Amino acid sequence: MSGPAHDIARQVRSGERSAAAVLDATLARVRERDPRYNCFTAITESRARQEAAAIDARRARGETLPPLAGVPYAVKNLFDIADEVTLAGGRVNASNPPARRDSALVERMRDAGAVLVGALNMDEHAYGFTTENTHYGACRNPHDTSRIAGGSSGGSAAAVAGGLVPLTLGSDTNGSIRVPASLCGVFGLKPTFGRLPRTGSFPFVGSLDHLGPFAASVSDLAAAYDALQGPDADDVACAQHEAAPTLPDLAQGAGNLRIGVLGGYFSEWASPQARRAVQIAARALNATAVVELPGAAQARAAAFIITAAEGGALHRRRLVTHYDYYEPHSRDRLVAGSLVPAAWVQQAQRIRHRAYLEALDLFKQFDVLIAPATPVSATPIGADWLTLGGKELPARASMGLLTQPISAIGLPVVTAPTWPGLEQDGHLPLGVQLIGAPWREADCLRVAHALEQAGAAQSRPI
Amino acid sequence: MSGPAHDIARQVRSGERSAAAVLDATLARVRERDPRYNCFTAITESRARQEAAAIDARRARGETLPPLAGVPYAVKNLFDIADEVTLAGGRVNASNPPARRDSALVERMRDAGAVLVGALNMDEHAYGFTTENTHYGACRNPHDTSRIAGGSSGGSAAAVAGGLVPLTLGSDTNGSIRVPASLCGVFGLKPTFGRLPRTGSFPFVGSLDHLGPFAASVSDLAAAYDALQGPDADDVACAQHEAAPTLPDLAQGAGNLRIGVLGGYFSEWASPQARRAVQIAARALNATAVVELPGAAQARAAAFIITAAEGGALHRRRLVTHYDYYEPHSRDRLVAGSLVPAAWVQQAQRIRHRAYLEALDLFKQFDVLIAPATPVSATPIGADWLTLGGKELPARASMGLLTQPISAIGLPVVTAPTWPGLEQDGHLPLGVQLIGAPWREADCLRVAHALEQAGAAQSRPI
Repeated sequence: MSGPAHDIARQVRSGERSAAAVLDATLARVRERDPRYNCFTAITESRARQEAAAIDARRARGETLPPLAGVPYAVKNLFDIADEVTLAGGRVNASNPPARRDSALVERMRDAGAVLVGALNMDEHAYGFTTENTHYGACRNPHDTSRIAGGSSGGSAAAVAGGLVPLTLGSDTNGSIRVPASLCGVFGLKPTFGRLPRTGSFPFVGSLDHLGPFAASVSDLAAAYDALQGPDADDVACAQHEAAPTLPDLAQGAGNLRIGVLGGYFSEWASPQARRAVQIAARALNATAVVELPGAAQARAAAFIITAAEGGALHRRRLVTHYDYYEPHSRDRLVAGSLVPAAWVQQAQRIRHRAYLEALDLFKQFDVLIAPATPVSATPIGADWLTLGGKELPARASMGLLTQPISAIGLPVVTAPTWPGLEQDGHLPLGVQLIGAPWREADCLRVAHALEQAGAAQSRPI
Repeated sequence: MSGPAHDIARQVRSGERSAAAVLDATLARVRERDPRYNCFTAITESRARQEAAAIDARRARGETLPPLAGVPYAVKNLFDIADEVTLAGGRVNASNPPARRDSALVERMRDAGAVLVGALNMDEHAYGFTTENTHYGACRNPHDTSRIAGGSSGGSAAAVAGGLVPLTLGSDTNGSIRVPASLCGVFGLKPTFGRLPRTGSFPFVGSLDHLGPFAASVSDLAAAYDALQGPDADDVACAQHEAAPTLPDLAQGAGNLRIGVLGGYFSEWASPQARRAVQIAARALNATAVVELPGAAQARAAAFIITAAEGGALHRRRLVTHYDYYEPHSRDRLVAGSLVPAAWVQQAQRIRHRAYLEALDLFKQFDVLIAPATPVSATPIGADWLTLGGKELPARASMGLLTQPISAIGLPVVTAPTWPGLEQDGHLPLGVQLIGAPWREADCLRVAHALEQAGAAQSRPI
């Protein structure tokens, strides 16, 4: 098991380095590099020093340290952090009172010994795929700072890609973990809908919101996920699934898993780079069967309607009183969403359920399905349009073309970074989605690990 | 244990009467009396003869007969009956193909030995409280045929009140079992939301629809309910609660149950008759504590919005193509409902959840709460207005004033008929709601039985 988080935990456990020394180095690196990337919107230095000192004190007392002892991490700024204002990317939230307690997942990371160093940039209220935040500035892609990091968890992906922290947490409603993981070349996990509790995080779309981790290796990703798992009575959508550790299973490899490639829609809306990414993964895994998810386009349309309606419902009062405070990139979509008829949402939920049943059929024949995570690699900051298959498409909305159908039906996905190396974007990564059956995160992680072992997928943090 | 259904089952079991003879008498009574009441929209004579003959054959073979052996019953015409067209009160459905199989509850009644004699009149698509059905004619109250039977399960209540059949089934979205039970002077049970499967019944509002039985005695009501209970994987809302027979517990009485009276909203919107009905029940039960359900008015408003939106969503396509076929009393409400913004529904669901939590608080101190089932007794057929507390209110919508807040939060309710005997409506009954905590139907039935034993509540079928 390897990766920057594992290395740190091992060093802290053995006494090779103190948690305090790890933290000092981390804060120095964040201060040196972050002005180039604009990942952090807050640094929680005094809390971090307390958490690191507590770990060092436990070691001094001879206690057994928890699995992520001393590992620095940071969270998208929609997670509540006690005594910090939860921005959720919005200027309109800046004058809210500070959170009274940590969100459920921050509590679990603390219990696992991790050290929280700050909060990360995002699209306002998670409504975007680019992290071009008008209030707090665009987050920049560490592999090319003229390009977007992707969104809405752009800060979370870029902070790992830029080598600032080894672990981060983000959220994914329509692709907000998978898109930035793809564009920044890091591993990201969007678990099954209902797997991780959203208690204490700023909501966007209750029936689509997922939370999950980012890391630079599959072992680190699985270790973070294992620390986050477990039921929570305070999130009604969070199923009562007991934690099922995935880290010990990675070594099994992907040998006995049936792996297919999603064609049709997922090939049509893919650039040559994105197709190459899938090819790299499929070859490494000997996956030759190509199948279709017939309801993909309809599921994406349903996700658009549900997102607009639930997001619009959440914000409509403050849009009336504080319109000027809202992100220009998304506020008019929220206003429009607040007027969507309930009858459309009802129909969208029906379509979504049908696509889910179709997907279950596919999982009778396959354990994991491969698809590109984004149609293209990172676009320039400020770009309004992108070209795909000879068509001009709106750049910001189209980044979710391949992720939306999958989150709409709640399937677990690991995004694994490949480096297709084609044409003018040869220096940029592009991720593949490794899509599992409901509640089978372990399968996605095992396949991602096999790709990493084979050298087909790898994170290259700076 | 007594009541017309029990009497018939006992006679059939003992051989005193054959199921065929019971059926003959029933069909003769329906044919003689129903022209006055207009309860039935279809008589399923040949099926009934087969079911009765099967019971008699089983007895002839010496088999042990099921609990409702030979008991005639009928169902609101929104329940699928194999080979019959499911009208759901709508002319627009009259050209639909016949149902291919029985609805889940009709199957369960058949398994319990009951004999289905027909389908019953209702408000179109269950959207009404009066059963003034423009296509199939108004259903008339057997206690005064110039008055409404109430709705939307008007045929189901009137068929029991008129002595046509001892048991019927209906549905309740906003009061459609409790309102006609109150106005016709029969017992009705609206179980906890999710208790009885809706599989094979014509839907109205998925998040509010309940099904349940009517009877002329509490023993008969409990026997029917016990026959209907049990989980069903085909109704996602139907909780996986195993059947818990209630009939054996009736004899326990209400002695150890803590019984309160709902005041505030439920007293404000009650006529002198309705207040007298509550007084009769409270005195018989020695219930003196008066408590309030603070969210009642808001819960009713939420139920209106959810009903309009979900009902509108269900019918909007056919309203475009078949507007003229729709019930004039409700079609414009459905059209308006199809345009309700999803943001309103989201807010309504939140308000509903809050009222539910407030109710749970009340049930820490009480087992059963008493409230009137309707604000007034049966109004004249065709009446557009009623007077309540000096205010003129729309008659058709206002009949649900006291039932809507309770179904909005899914609590189980037995409606028990009292005879307040006041003023010009002295000949008419008015029911009380006996409201239990979620999943505690047994408490409601025990209290209803205690009232019946004390002579405070009784059905007086003609």
